[in-house]
Amino acid sequence: MEITYSNIKVIGFDADDTLWVNETYFREAEEEVGRLLSHYETPNKIDQELFRMEIKNLPTYGYGVKGFVLSMIELAIELSDGRVSNEIIGKILDIGKNMINKPIELLDGVEDVLKTLSKNYRLILATKGDLLDQERKLEKSGLLDYFHHIEVLSEKQEANYKKLLKHLDIKPSEFLMIGNSLKSDILPLVNIGAEAIHVPFHTTWQHEKVSKMEASGLEYKTVDNLKEILNFIKTK
Amino acid sequence: MEITYSNIKVIGFDADDTLWVNETYFREAEEEVGRLLSHYETPNKIDQELFRMEIKNLPTYGYGVKGFVLSMIELAIELSDGRVSNEIIGKILDIGKNMINKPIELLDGVEDVLKTLSKNYRLILATKGDLLDQERKLEKSGLLDYFHHIEVLSEKQEANYKKLLKHLDIKPSEFLMIGNSLKSDILPLVNIGAEAIHVPFHTTWQHEKVSKMEASGLEYKTVDNLKEILNFIKTK
Repeated sequence: MEITYSNIKVIGFDADDTLWVNETYFREAEEEVGRLLSHYETPNKIDQELFRMEIKNLPTYGYGVKGFVLSMIELAIELSDGRVSNEIIGKILDIGKNMINKPIELLDGVEDVLKTLSKNYRLILATKGDLLDQERKLEKSGLLDYFHHIEVLSEKQEANYKKLLKHLDIKPSEFLMIGNSLKSDILPLVNIGAEAIHVPFHTTWQHEKVSKMEASGLEYKTVDNLKEILNFIKTK
Repeated sequence: MEITYSNIKVIGFDADDTLWVNETYFREAEEEVGRLLSHYETPNKIDQELFRMEIKNLPTYGYGVKGFVLSMIELAIELSDGRVSNEIIGKILDIGKNMINKPIELLDGVEDVLKTLSKNYRLILATKGDLLDQERKLEKSGLLDYFHHIEVLSEKQEANYKKLLKHLDIKPSEFLMIGNSLKSDILPLVNIGAEAIHVPFHTTWQHEKVSKMEASGLEYKTVDNLKEILNFIKTK
């Protein structure tokens, strides 16, 4: 067993698609809206246009389900040339409410890993999205007690992580981040001198993808399953 | 000059309607939606129904503009019996985008007060709502440098403030909260043994109102203008 991270004081966990399933529900919602609008466009075109709409609205709405729903409604009006029915718009509202109120589906090994690490480290949940959504998910997940607090970042970029470390009053080398998104959870950390372990999820939102180029030459570990991180972190 | 708060280490400021105008824009949006839906109901009825819809959706959507817009759309469909036009729904989406992108209108004396206090105390912004919205507002306001960080609370209730104090690692008596909402910024603080100063704003959302009964017998100061708080807080 090779202990790599011996200076670590605080471990940050991404939440969505690292601790529990999330992206899958967005994919399902996109399929559903594809069916609802199939009268106006092909599923493939709707998918592309929804992505374009989400990116256009990202500076205004930010991340999370509510902005996603508002973008779906705007798209429905646009693609239908202003003729989409109230019934379909109502169904889009329902898609959003169902997403927000979905039960939590924990990923494999999550509880064991957190139980073990919380005895030795200060754990924080570092997520972007909506605070209310994330608090509710954490509460429903039963994992609340393992975390010191939730840190909601408006963006997961180097500057935001630097601010977080300043706030935690620790050096970059004392922070380890664990998450499924190379772009949000890994690269910015490695770039500011912190540690990071990548745990890929089978589905990644297009916006979160990075080219192999951007990640090449940077040092971080990748594991297939969250449980494997225990091999690299010192525990009593 | 009577210094009342001599033990204070951290001062928390509410943001909306304490540092800058906010509620006014919600009232304007409600008037606008009243006009848009005037074909279906009286302005007064629309107002009442919108409030009912917002409260119904609060556990799902939380606070902030995006949930407000989703509630307005749901109401438009409901009040029109499913006949509201795409044009009106599009206009409701625009109301929301305009609210989010509005310039910041600082309240009287804000900058002076923060400049003075930030030299002597750790200032935090303690707000509910959407992190992205609040960060953007703080950035646009030019007040960013006066604050140590933004604390976004999903609810401003006693338990949330207790967690905040634990996180700040200070005693309740070392924290002073300043804000316009008796319900959110004052009563929960007084109830947990912290200090609070009430700076009323001319408009208060119905949901934020408390009866005189709930506040009676509790100790907190009320000032007419933010600048007056400097009379009670020690500064170099």
